[in-house]
Amino acid sequence: MPSYSASAAPAYSARGPAEHPATTVTVLGLGPMGRALAGALVDAGLRTTVWNRTPGRDRELLDRGAAGAASAAEAVAASEVTVVCVVNYDAADAVLRQDEVAAALKGRTVVNLTADTPARARDTAEWAAGHGVRYLDGAIMTPTTTIGTPDAVFLYSGPQGLYEEAGAVRQALGGTHTHLGADPGRAAAYDIALLDIFWTAMAGYAHALAVARAEGVTATELAPFAQGIGAILPPVFAETAADADAGTYSGDGNPLTSAVSSMSHIVHVSESHGIDAGVMRAAEGMARRAIGLGHGQDGFIRVAEVIGRR
Amino acid sequence: MPSYSASAAPAYSARGPAEHPATTVTVLGLGPMGRALAGALVDAGLRTTVWNRTPGRDRELLDRGAAGAASAAEAVAASEVTVVCVVNYDAADAVLRQDEVAAALKGRTVVNLTADTPARARDTAEWAAGHGVRYLDGAIMTPTTTIGTPDAVFLYSGPQGLYEEAGAVRQALGGTHTHLGADPGRAAAYDIALLDIFWTAMAGYAHALAVARAEGVTATELAPFAQGIGAILPPVFAETAADADAGTYSGDGNPLTSAVSSMSHIVHVSESHGIDAGVMRAAEGMARRAIGLGHGQDGFIRVAEVIGRR
Repeated sequence: MPSYSASAAPAYSARGPAEHPATTVTVLGLGPMGRALAGALVDAGLRTTVWNRTPGRDRELLDRGAAGAASAAEAVAASEVTVVCVVNYDAADAVLRQDEVAAALKGRTVVNLTADTPARARDTAEWAAGHGVRYLDGAIMTPTTTIGTPDAVFLYSGPQGLYEEAGAVRQALGGTHTHLGADPGRAAAYDIALLDIFWTAMAGYAHALAVARAEGVTATELAPFAQGIGAILPPVFAETAADADAGTYSGDGNPLTSAVSSMSHIVHVSESHGIDAGVMRAAEGMARRAIGLGHGQDGFIRVAEVIGRR
Repeated sequence: MPSYSASAAPAYSARGPAEHPATTVTVLGLGPMGRALAGALVDAGLRTTVWNRTPGRDRELLDRGAAGAASAAEAVAASEVTVVCVVNYDAADAVLRQDEVAAALKGRTVVNLTADTPARARDTAEWAAGHGVRYLDGAIMTPTTTIGTPDAVFLYSGPQGLYEEAGAVRQALGGTHTHLGADPGRAAAYDIALLDIFWTAMAGYAHALAVARAEGVTATELAPFAQGIGAILPPVFAETAADADAGTYSGDGNPLTSAVSSMSHIVHVSESHGIDAGVMRAAEGMARRAIGLGHGQDGFIRVAEVIGRR
């Protein structure tokens, strides 16, 4: 196996696959996302080996030109880089932390795109360091359908050199790739924070649809206005980020006292229709806690400071 | 006073203020939003009378050409249309439901832009009908700074004729105006549902900032990615709306079981840093309830149906 680091270069991502004839990659985990990753790698012409704990998931990929493997150890031994994408780090550890797999990985690179917590990412990085495994952690921020397209978004953390060396794999996966720093937990930290925004917003949307329906408004009727609300979120996120870092929470025109007034109306209407308002009750509680601490005239993002205070 | 309905025309919003020389308007309530509304009406050349329960809030508007009034009854008697914008319907009713105010409003039009619940809007419409007051309910979906600009968004419900007659007032307020139907509670229902989305999403953002900070990630670092998450919400809202109305919840590639896995990671990381995860715990609870009812392979919006089921 050629030394991977010898061919590392910062401009890697600008090169085509043809310039990386030696890049071989294994994908461990063939759920919907793992299959999408392996498919993109095969399509890009990389020699790709696939493996899944439950057999039979590799058939379509084998038809498309991927190589199969009888065991995880055999799979990782076939390639310079192993991409891991399983359900969580319990599952990732159950595969990687077997003696024969660890032995086969020694001196090779693992790019772990499994989603879990920053602490689990750091723990696996530590295990890898102790076993001579080159370890880059990552997170996939977009759905399976974006993989291999310009819409895919990948985040990484860990050694900058490994990130650069993985240029051919990154390029094959499509989209944008960002290295966030040397702390291996950093990609997972961004992932958690961003999923927090996404799933909380989706919970709000699902709840809004239930309240609208109870009021005789269909989702289709609400949708154009809901899209309008969604569209104002990115600029609000951008405008309030500097406030949050500076600890100055301008509530001009929209103070916390006004927010809780809306929130209590929402809770009231929801519960008057027998619809669980637990999410909004919890959100209102955070805002009222900030008001109770004397921040009633501040903007809503003051809440970020208050809920993190012990 | 000329008969207002005599000049009603569906094409009203396309006319200029000069074509409505007789339009006179009173604004009750001079908080930040009331002042913005009155300022836009004055700027558009409408003869505008202003009043606020707490005196002294009208000074700048009087300097700009608005007329003052010694009482609410005097204020409403001065104009064909009275726009109400106070903190909630308790405050609106306290002003409107006084004998002398009701008497002065008889035969005139009230456009109530105060935010509250659909039930309160319907109740006030009923009171108005009983007192010979022409009543249109409305909601303002955008901040004070948008009033008088193309970015303002107003929703209305109640008699279509009154909506059309208010063309000069609507035009003076700027932005887009939508009549949602004859049920006077409908604008409030949309308002509640849309604020539900907005404030839940903001609660998610504030929480994400707290978690990110605990992980050493600043709001400014997270912001570009948070904006990316925000940008995918409008298309997700649009795509899932038809599912919600049809009761078919496709979970292709992103089933509820996968959502709760992310949610439990978020709760775990949050609480490991001592950050209140009540909002996400409540959201995860809704999702787990849907899974418990056998919908684990459905998309997240199945939750909208489950939480509304008694």
